Amino acid sequence: MAVGLKNITMLEKVAGIKLGSAAAGIRYQDRDDMLIILADKGSRFAGVFTQNKFSAAPVVISRKHLQVAEPRACLVNAGNANAGTGSQGEQDALDCCQVLAQKLGINVESVLPFSTGVIGEALPVNKMSKAIPVCLETMSADGWVSAAHTIMTTDTVAKGITSKVKLNGGEITITGIVKGSGMICPDMATLLSFVATDACIEKALLQETLEDVVAESFNRTTVDGDTSTNDSCILIATGKCNHKEIMNRDNENYMLFQKALKKVFIHLAQAIIRDAEGATKFVTINVINAASDIDATEAAKTIAHSPLVKTALFASDPNWGRILAALGRAHLSDMDIQKVNLSINGVTVLSKGQVDDAYTEEQGQAVMSQQDIIIEVDLALGSGSSSIWTSDLSHEYIRINAEYRS
Amino acid sequence: MAVGLKNITMLEKVAGIKLGSAAAGIRYQDRDDMLIILADKGSRFAGVFTQNKFSAAPVVISRKHLQVAEPRACLVNAGNANAGTGSQGEQDALDCCQVLAQKLGINVESVLPFSTGVIGEALPVNKMSKAIPVCLETMSADGWVSAAHTIMTTDTVAKGITSKVKLNGGEITITGIVKGSGMICPDMATLLSFVATDACIEKALLQETLEDVVAESFNRTTVDGDTSTNDSCILIATGKCNHKEIMNRDNENYMLFQKALKKVFIHLAQAIIRDAEGATKFVTINVINAASDIDATEAAKTIAHSPLVKTALFASDPNWGRILAALGRAHLSDMDIQKVNLSINGVTVLSKGQVDDAYTEEQGQAVMSQQDIIIEVDLALGSGSSSIWTSDLSHEYIRINAEYRS
Repeated sequence: MAVGLKNITMLEKVAGIKLGSAAAGIRYQDRDDMLIILADKGSRFAGVFTQNKFSAAPVVISRKHLQVAEPRACLVNAGNANAGTGSQGEQDALDCCQVLAQKLGINVESVLPFSTGVIGEALPVNKMSKAIPVCLETMSADGWVSAAHTIMTTDTVAKGITSKVKLNGGEITITGIVKGSGMICPDMATLLSFVATDACIEKALLQETLEDVVAESFNRTTVDGDTSTNDSCILIATGKCNHKEIMNRDNENYMLFQKALKKVFIHLAQAIIRDAEGATKFVTINVINAASDIDATEAAKTIAHSPLVKTALFASDPNWGRILAALGRAHLSDMDIQKVNLSINGVTVLSKGQVDDAYTEEQGQAVMSQQDIIIEVDLALGSGSSSIWTSDLSHEYIRINAEYRS
Repeated sequence: MAVGLKNITMLEKVAGIKLGSAAAGIRYQDRDDMLIILADKGSRFAGVFTQNKFSAAPVVISRKHLQVAEPRACLVNAGNANAGTGSQGEQDALDCCQVLAQKLGINVESVLPFSTGVIGEALPVNKMSKAIPVCLETMSADGWVSAAHTIMTTDTVAKGITSKVKLNGGEITITGIVKGSGMICPDMATLLSFVATDACIEKALLQETLEDVVAESFNRTTVDGDTSTNDSCILIATGKCNHKEIMNRDNENYMLFQKALKKVFIHLAQAIIRDAEGATKFVTINVINAASDIDATEAAKTIAHSPLVKTALFASDPNWGRILAALGRAHLSDMDIQKVNLSINGVTVLSKGQVDDAYTEEQGQAVMSQQDIIIEVDLALGSGSSSIWTSDLSHEYIRINAEYRS
């Protein structure tokens, strides 16, 4: 079902990172659902998490652990979100961390827990504890593709990417995986994403850089406007590459690293939308010449969230009136409807608020039938701009979400 | 399909009001699609309209005419919204008003136009002009039920209500009709609603009263978060009843009138939700003890707009985690997740942020299987409260909106 996206088959290893998967039988049968990512000593971790006030137990614990210790391991499960589970949920997450910490001979605070799946059910600590040694037996630097499969829930394809870039002093590798296809409207990060690099970069700068690239990637996506309780994104820099440590933004190596990292994150963010629940289209909404960037984002998100725009996209129906109606209800500081221009995949639909003289329904139909759709709204007011990536709203979305627990 | 709602079969006439319908063949075959509502001289009109910046041509004209003249007639068509049609659309609406004005021997400004249907297509002025005399031939005080049918688009039942109330000096009648089942998230009024009464009330007070009752009825509904370009609601007071004119809020007759009017508007607003596109449930979301009424409304609307909550409702799935996740992303000034209580149709699900000890999945399943669902969220913080009425999100919603133009 994913739009222009296949299962990944190859991801490059990252020096200093090993991954192991196992089947704990948490929710799914006959597939791996637990993952351990282990980083060599000296690795630096950065993380961003959901802004949802009902943060899941693992998010609470991971946030805390990141503050107090040098993390070494991520312990991830699919099938159970450990959210809405109160203080017992936090204890359960800690108990699992403790089992892994003991096996590895490290502090419990050096383990970060991550969960994704159904909300409101107790974490099966016993099943998970038994699976932890199995994960550890399979640890390998080549475990990335298996890991991408292990963390899937309603995802239809395993998603990830590797990028290599030459810095002064050595070539670095960036490899990342991501899962998520519903409850997607990240307010800070996306569901679960783990990215590792052998680059060597100062810790605070790593965190800042992660926040920057998340703002331009995951935070520009929306499937259904629902922000998850479990969104977590971790970036690990093992420092195994031989280049000189990157200490600040003001040097070429930083720019090369940041550019490559952003490319990886944009790929992962777009992959989520291409694999959005029930998606049949990959839609980019560009709003340009708005009064401000904030206005542009508000306009793009309002269009992206409109169920009527999304069903028209599903139907390949050039029903531009719905785009207009969504734009008209967006909370913008300024808009002049007599100035608005609208194009779909390069075909001009509206010029200065009116149907363009050259526009025909046939042209609209032709471009709306494509899989990749770019809707561009030109407000002709200022210099604000924004892009949002979204999907359409299909029967399959309803089926998936009406049947998710049955 | 409507949830607990049947076609109306009887509406009481209102002294001073006549209605006539005809088939203009605008979009539908073999059914009436044009309506004229005529009020006796001396009647007072009040109106509220969409806040969508892309207001349709008839909304622009009706707003203007209400300012400059004493209205006498509403000219309504279904099947074409005359929205996104620019200056030509306004001229088309005016031309139709002119045809009716001439036939009636009144000023064009005394005619208010209303359109509902597809956005972005030119109004068929010729067809409509030919249908106007046919409408006039059928004018009758008993035309309310036909009128309710005439203005339907994707509605599955004709919606309306009559209320009678004894004032000091005479009994008044309030009769209202409404259409609308998608693109429903009124920011001021709903799609099209026409309510008439023979009460005698001062004009400015009539307008204020309309705005008050709309705020507590139509503005509390949402189907899909999409505010229409054409929402219009008209209240006509013919003054034919013999009671003394109501001049201010400070008397018993005003309170009796306002109470009856509010009841009528709440019925009409709820009828829209019961007939929402694809609805299988009628859902009330009550948020109580919020930090403020504004917070309560934001929380209720965020839950009501969540596609994941809506698909869970469709599936009769007591997936309360989705309600929590929606609440957690609402933009509230204050919330303490340790205090939140949640109940569904009286069954306590969460107590102080944790699953209630007595709650069982079977109980949740039983109440979620009902047609009428009340979700109550108690934030245990302050005295703010709000209620929102909404529907679920079903396959039928997708089908209707993906196929609407085909």
